[in-house]
This record gives sequence, C-alpha cells and structure tokens, in this order.
Amino acid sequence: MASLSARALAGIPEVRPGDDLAALILDAVDGAPLRDGQVLAIAHTAVSKAEGALVKLSDVIASPRAHELASGNGDAAAARDPRVVQVVLDQSAEVLRASRGVLICRTHHGFVCANAGVDASNASADADAQTVILLPRDPDGSARNIRARLRALTGMSARGQTAPAVLISDSFGRAWRHGQVDVTIGLAGMQPLDDWRGRTDASGMELRATWLAIADAAAGAADLARAKDSREPVVIIDGLERFIDEDDGPGARALLRPLQEDLFR
Amino acid sequence: MASLSARALAGIPEVRPGDDLAALILDAVDGAPLRDGQVLAIAHTAVSKAEGALVKLSDVIASPRAHELASGNGDAAAARDPRVVQVVLDQSAEVLRASRGVLICRTHHGFVCANAGVDASNASADADAQTVILLPRDPDGSARNIRARLRALTGMSARGQTAPAVLISDSFGRAWRHGQVDVTIGLAGMQPLDDWRGRTDASGMELRATWLAIADAAAGAADLARAKDSREPVVIIDGLERFIDEDDGPGARALLRPLQEDLFR
Repeated sequence: MASLSARALAGIPEVRPGDDLAALILDAVDGAPLRDGQVLAIAHTAVSKAEGALVKLSDVIASPRAHELASGNGDAAAARDPRVVQVVLDQSAEVLRASRGVLICRTHHGFVCANAGVDASNASADADAQTVILLPRDPDGSARNIRARLRALTGMSARGQTAPAVLISDSFGRAWRHGQVDVTIGLAGMQPLDDWRGRTDASGMELRATWLAIADAAAGAADLARAKDSREPVVIIDGLERFIDEDDGPGARALLRPLQEDLFR
Repeated sequence: MASLSARALAGIPEVRPGDDLAALILDAVDGAPLRDGQVLAIAHTAVSKAEGALVKLSDVIASPRAHELASGNGDAAAARDPRVVQVVLDQSAEVLRASRGVLICRTHHGFVCANAGVDASNASADADAQTVILLPRDPDGSARNIRARLRALTGMSARGQTAPAVLISDSFGRAWRHGQVDVTIGLAGMQPLDDWRGRTDASGMELRATWLAIADAAAGAADLARAKDSREPVVIIDGLERFIDEDDGPGARALLRPLQEDLFR
C-alpha cells in the first residue's frame, strides 16, 4: 500500500538576501534529521529572497506600454501600479493576454502564468519598502544549489545516503479552472514526470493517463500542508522515494510544453 | 504545524455496474473505521463503472465527422477508432482543438480535457469486450450519493460525526505544461476553493495567491498515493479537516471557469 505524507517545517525565520537556505532548513529540522528519499518542497518566495531576486519599485521607470497596460482602460478596479507592470514586462518573453487587470505572460524561463510570477505581496515585513519578488532567475539551478549545499552540510552522500530532492514551487492559475494550484518551477533529485506510455494496467490494457506530472502533484500536496498566513515556506514530503535519485535529473524544465507543441496558438 | 497524509485503500475489488461503491469502501476499511473530517478520493473510473457509464463500441455507429477526425489526416500513428471518436463527440459540447490524434473538448459538464474524459483503457478485464468508460453524467451528484450512502451505512451523522467528504477525480492535461495531474470532477462535503482574497499574510501584506483550488491539489496528492498499475481507486486523505463540512457544499462545479471568463477565446 503506497502512502504519502507532507508536513510543514516550523521555525524557518524570515528569509533575507544572502541567507543560506539549506542551513536555515537544517537548523529547523534539528532533532529530526532528513531521511533518504525525502522531498523538500520550498515556496519560491523564500528562494527568491535568499537570492536577492527582488526589485525596489523606487528604482523602476515605467515605460509608456506599462502605463497603458496599467491604466485598466478606465476600469479603476483593474488599474495597477505602472512600475509593477514594468517589472512584469521585464520578466516576460511574451504577454499572451491582458485582460481585467491580469497579464498572462510567458516568462523568460518559459512558464505561462499571471504577472510573470512577479509577487507584489509578501516581499517585506515593512510595507513601505515597496519591493516586489521575482521568480528565481534559474529555478532548476537554485534547486541544484540548495541540494548540493544540503549534501555538503549533512554529509549524507558521504554516508551513502541520497540527499533529499529539492522542489521549488509557485502558485499558478489554470486556463479553464478557477483558483490556483502550486506547480513545480525548479527541481533537483526527483523525476518531474512518471512515464507510463506504452505500459499496461492490471488488466493488461494500455493506460490512458500515461504521463503523470508527479512533481506538480507533489507541489500541490505540499501547499495543502502549508498554512497560508504563516511563514512555512518549507514542507517535507515522504512517500515519493521511488521517484528520488542521487542524480539531479532533468529538472522542472522538462515540465514545460515547447511552444511548437502549444495547441492553443 | 499542518500536515497531510494520503494512503491508498487496499482490497477494493474490480467494480461492476450496479455495485454499491460505499459498501465496497466500508468493507475495505474494515478494522480501521472512517474518522471525522477525512476525504475519500475516488478515481472516476470506479464511479463510472458502478453507475454503468460505459459504452460498448459494437453499439456505436461512427458519423462522417467521426471518421474524418479519426483518420489522422494520413498520419497512421494519429489514426484512431472512429467509434471511440464518435463517443468523444457525443460527450462533448464543443471540440476546441483537434491535433495530432488528440481531441481537446469541452464536455457537457463544462470540463475542458482530452477526449472528453472518455477512457478507452481499463474498461474491462476482458480486452475483447471493447468497452469505453465515460465520465459520470453528474459527478457532483455521484459524490453526494456516495456520501449519503456512507452516512446511512456507518450511522456517522447520527452519532454526531461528520461523514467523510467524497472527491471524484480524473487525470487532465494542462495547456502549457507536459503531463497530466489529477483534478476534482465531483465533490461533496469539502470546500473546492480556499478563498483568501482580501486577506493578508503574516506581515499584513495582501496575499497574491488568494484563491486556492484545494480540491484539485487534494486530487493530485491522492494520485501520488495510488499505484498506477494496480487497482487502488480509493485514497483516504487526512489533514484537510478544516475544509470539511457536514453540508455537501457547492461541489466541483465551482471549479469551472465560466465560458465568458475564458481568457483564451
């Protein structure tokens, strides 16, 4: 019988630029050491803050296009800070839709999400600082770096243990469904997809759902264990050992549908 | 500290039309009674089979349109059984895209998914039977019926306990990401969405991800606990008690983005 468990890690302090996130995590797990085959699911805001992926709005000069997109076309409720819109444009390879105050963007990484993942909330305990949080520049690289640091600090690999996989998540909306779910934007040490194509079920029939985005399902599961109004960026997941490997693997990049396979353009 | 756990329920037999799914579940949990605030996540195929939502392909006459869509336009690898395509058309309110052997459809319920959720695998232990599985006709109604039957069989409500929520899932692809994840197509007794709009985080800043599709995240978590090649349609989830209510609530229908809010048409 398979089983899955996810628990939020208490005791991670407010993360600041330059912080060693792996060290903060190990301090917080003190007394309950990490085990082989676990996944550490980390909300990207903690990673972005540690990496200094922040922009002070006072440093931003909004372009005419940003002013236009921010205007809300006369709808005051849809009007936004043009400097935030400028940051969103800077993070975007393409704006797919601009509607009702929301920009749906393809980021330079290739993620399709609202506002290019730019987070105008939760950036600082000081509301006057007016800082926005970007996605990490290279989320797979961030995940690999955190995993390498966990390996170095714990000596797990040296003891023949597999370092925990590191999964970095953000909350994305969906094209045809309400609400957001967490998906994986950076990954090291876990298979992003479980490929059953060509395999058969217990009856010997070919399986229909054959290419499971397990890393995205894991990101969503982690978010259910995280209280939204408290600071619990890190969730420890057990039960996915079969997908964890000492090798860092292809990362979350493997979850991106290439532009030429996009059915909706 | 919040935590989530999901475990597959062993011992559910192959489900047949007319089976009492609630009774099969209670037989399988024998010795570990259901508790207040649990969620039973059920793969829709089990519900569809119990309800007889099956079509024998020998009963289907394919229309000219089905033949055309099934032809694969000369690409043999994309060619399909025209009768299966006919069933997909019958289940669809609209075909959004037909490309590379995949039909992206909006079903009569309003779900946007590949092949209108019609499952040509896993329908029968007898491969010669050539039966396909449909989505339940009214998945929220199915969830409410199973929950009502659990209530009646266990007497939980009579003892002042909350009957377990019932979540029915299917694996859907995503517009811009590879792979499928399970989402919720039928729901009773659980909030589908956790609404934080207007609420603030620990720093007093407005939250960006404010409308969380918790039922979809729970469906994905359940699927991670389910071995794909064995018969484990039912997963028991603990840790979502805060979202469970004796009232059946709005169901999975609340997760559907209305057509007029679809940003991509």
